[in-house]
Amino acid sequence: MATSTARRTQGERSAEARRRLCEATIDCLAAHGYAGTTTLRVAEIAGLSRGAMQHHFGSKLDLVTAAAEYLLDGALARTVEMAHRLRPGEDRVRGFVRDAWRKLVASPRYDAILEIFVAVRSDAELRGRIEPVLRRLSLSLAAAVGTLFRTRDGSDPALLVGMTFTLLRGLSLEAGLYRDPALVERVLDQWADMLGDRLVFVDEAAAAG
Amino acid sequence: MATSTARRTQGERSAEARRRLCEATIDCLAAHGYAGTTTLRVAEIAGLSRGAMQHHFGSKLDLVTAAAEYLLDGALARTVEMAHRLRPGEDRVRGFVRDAWRKLVASPRYDAILEIFVAVRSDAELRGRIEPVLRRLSLSLAAAVGTLFRTRDGSDPALLVGMTFTLLRGLSLEAGLYRDPALVERVLDQWADMLGDRLVFVDEAAAAG
Repeated sequence: MATSTARRTQGERSAEARRRLCEATIDCLAAHGYAGTTTLRVAEIAGLSRGAMQHHFGSKLDLVTAAAEYLLDGALARTVEMAHRLRPGEDRVRGFVRDAWRKLVASPRYDAILEIFVAVRSDAELRGRIEPVLRRLSLSLAAAVGTLFRTRDGSDPALLVGMTFTLLRGLSLEAGLYRDPALVERVLDQWADMLGDRLVFVDEAAAAG
Repeated sequence: MATSTARRTQGERSAEARRRLCEATIDCLAAHGYAGTTTLRVAEIAGLSRGAMQHHFGSKLDLVTAAAEYLLDGALARTVEMAHRLRPGEDRVRGFVRDAWRKLVASPRYDAILEIFVAVRSDAELRGRIEPVLRRLSLSLAAAVGTLFRTRDGSDPALLVGMTFTLLRGLSLEAGLYRDPALVERVLDQWADMLGDRLVFVDEAAAAG
């Protein structure tokens, strides 16, 4: 915080420019969709010249891949943070499902992920770039989930947490259509019931065992 | 079947042309996405002149709305038919989940629905047309589910069946990325376990009660 712009190193300034370009790509994807996302638009949103942008990212594919990685890494960190904030004694599985919806999947920046997921279906080049990002992320998610959760019935906690996001992604698709907050609440509650039959926070599992 | 083309009524020919245009729109959406779907392309795929097409559908919005209704009505009929085909004694809930995936959500024509759902997010005019179609459909689905299923725990069977499609829609988004059939199988199995704890076919519920 005390570091003035003048005293920033080249590396710090470069990281900051990349972060700004990732944020701008996320905004652009959410607002204009994948087809409407261009390097020119992203540079404009980031407030950088096209040349400055091309110093960091040479193509739309580079930009979108970096933005996806940045966004998904952030979502994973947020997921872990959310889980840690929920206190024993509360209905923590319900709290986790609600937070995952409210703070992650239903937040506007998450629309960018939806756009990328859909674009990948008909764009093999993009898929080739996004696939390794996703594979790495799902390994990190599995590792994080292993430190947070156990299951009552021997099912895989990483699978159950992954399915939570799968369901919420499907819900976010439908929520765009129905705009029915009561239906969303019912789905979140029903899933929390079903998940809570199986999933427990690791400290509760230790207390019970 | 015995009706020759010559003996078809005007109404029959018109219905057939509309059906062909809906099928062509579905193909076009699945292959070229919403942005790449144009009335010209649809007329070409349907093998109709642009004039003939415009006699039935005046705009892309009309075409896409009609195609969505046609596709979703077909999916509902298919869902009911699939449920009726599963015989007591089998693990019918698992069979239902697998069929819903294999025969509906994962089938290529379902990509058209995904395209429409995503397009709706940033297109208020399209949403205004698709919303009533969806509302009518979810009432029909609820009515159909009421004749097919009960729950063991007082939860709403229509909600659970709806959530099945919500989860599978999310899964179809991810399946485009991961191309990991083993993961898909694990999700289907885990959901069948969770759903089977609560949902029963109505004839089994009657036998048990």
